[in-house]
Amino acid sequence: MQLAKVVGSVVSTQKSASLTGKKLMVVTLVNLDGSTPHFQENTQEVAVDSMGAGEGELVLVSRGSSARKIFPEPNQAIDLAIVGIVDTIDRF
Amino acid sequence: MQLAKVVGSVVSTQKSASLTGKKLMVVTLVNLDGSTPHFQENTQEVAVDSMGAGEGELVLVSRGSSARKIFPEPNQAIDLAIVGIVDTIDRF
Amino acid sequence: MQLAKVVGSVVSTQKSASLTGKKLMVVTLVNLDGSTPHFQENTQEVAVDSMGAGEGELVLVSRGSSARKIFPEPNQAIDLAIVGIVDTIDRF
Amino acid sequence: MQLAKVVGSVVSTQKSASLTGKKLMVVTLVNLDGSTPHFQENTQEVAVDSMGAGEGELVLVSRGSSARKIFPEPNQAIDLAIVGIVDTIDRF
Amino acid sequence: MQLAKVVGSVVSTQKSASLTGKKLMVVTLVNLDGSTPHFQENTQEVAVDSMGAGEGELVLVSRGSSARKIFPEPNQAIDLAIVGIVDTIDRF
Repeated sequence: MQLAKVVGSVVSTQKSASLTGKKLMVVTLVNLDGSTPHFQENTQEVAVDSMGAGEGELVLVSRGSSARKIFPEPNQAIDLAIVGIVDTIDRF
Repeated sequence: MQLAKVVGSVVSTQKSASLTGKKLMVVTLVNLDGSTPHFQENTQEVAVDSMGAGEGELVLVSRGSSARKIFPEPNQAIDLAIVGIVDTIDRF
Repeated sequence: MQLAKVVGSVVSTQKSASLTGKKLMVVTLVNLDGSTPHFQENTQEVAVDSMGAGEGELVLVSRGSSARKIFPEPNQAIDLAIVGIVDTIDRF
Repeated sequence: MQLAKVVGSVVSTQKSASLTGKKLMVVTLVNLDGSTPHFQENTQEVAVDSMGAGEGELVLVSRGSSARKIFPEPNQAIDLAIVGIVDTIDRF
Repeated sequence: MQLAKVVGSVVSTQKSASLTGKKLMVVTLVNLDGSTPHFQENTQEVAVDSMGAGEGELVLVSRGSSARKIFPEPNQAIDLAIVGIVDTIDRF
């Protein structure tokens, strides 16, 4: 999984039936210190929320078939999902 | 999913049977502000359109097995699909 | 899918049985204008050809399980395949 | 698989049922010489630990469906897993 | 698949049962001319060898579920495999 911050949400009327009724959140990957990973600088993606995550929250996201399988069918179009809300991070 | 803009289309006569009769759109990833993600600068990809997306529209794309499963078989060659048309984005 | 140009071919005697008798083409990703995507600069990959693509041709490639499923079994080792030959591209 | 170093851990109360009772470790990819790969500079990810890895240990991580299949169901959200602890590396 | 060079090997006693008895080789991606791809500069990964590849050999590697399916079960942790040894490359 990756650490991400919720920075927005998307409204889409015309979409795959597998996305109907689901919350589409805009997320950006972050590091332990809140910075953006070098190679992801300036990148946002759209994750389906399974956790009720809100504005600015630090979350865990999963990709690909793992993201899809979080949701019951129809779930076909899902390739990124919020799968946890981060309470704390211990940095060794 | 990722945010992308439709910037072109591809004509291919000789192609996998799983692509026959499908619209092949050229897309480029974009951010909330319409800019191109840093690491994707100057990159275009080809997505199968399931939504009737047109020139310049802002869309959601899915990758990999999730993109493929949007379409009934034969769908084998599909690894990128347009799965939604974006109405509005709320930036927190 | 991604746009790619065929730039070479690979001879391999000792290989997975799932690659026996298949054409292994070296491809490099390209953009609409023929340039190389920024983050892929100087990168070549090896795709199994399902289309009879030749030297210098502009093709569509698929990745991962989508690439594999283009071919009947045994197909295990395949994670990149040429799935179409591009006739023309319309840039909006 | 990729070489990674364990640099932290995550506490998450509200998470996918498939992550319940599992150790979530923060890892960063490393090279043979301990340096960070160029394109991954400044990037951390979260892996589910199947090996009892501790602070600072050099580990092997697997991604995607391979990471998920390491664990019995429910395992849906898992897309990165620690699958080995490295004893030594021989550099040719 | 991608072109890679075998640059080392890993010893791991504590690892997923699916890796027991398998050779873990350190590989680095290369281009036709032997150079390292721009975006992969300074990156090594660990592939399970199915071909008896040796020090410094040029090989083909496959990723993800394709890499896993090369091996009989238990094979869960495998997401990168050496699937061919390159004899020659023709550059057009």
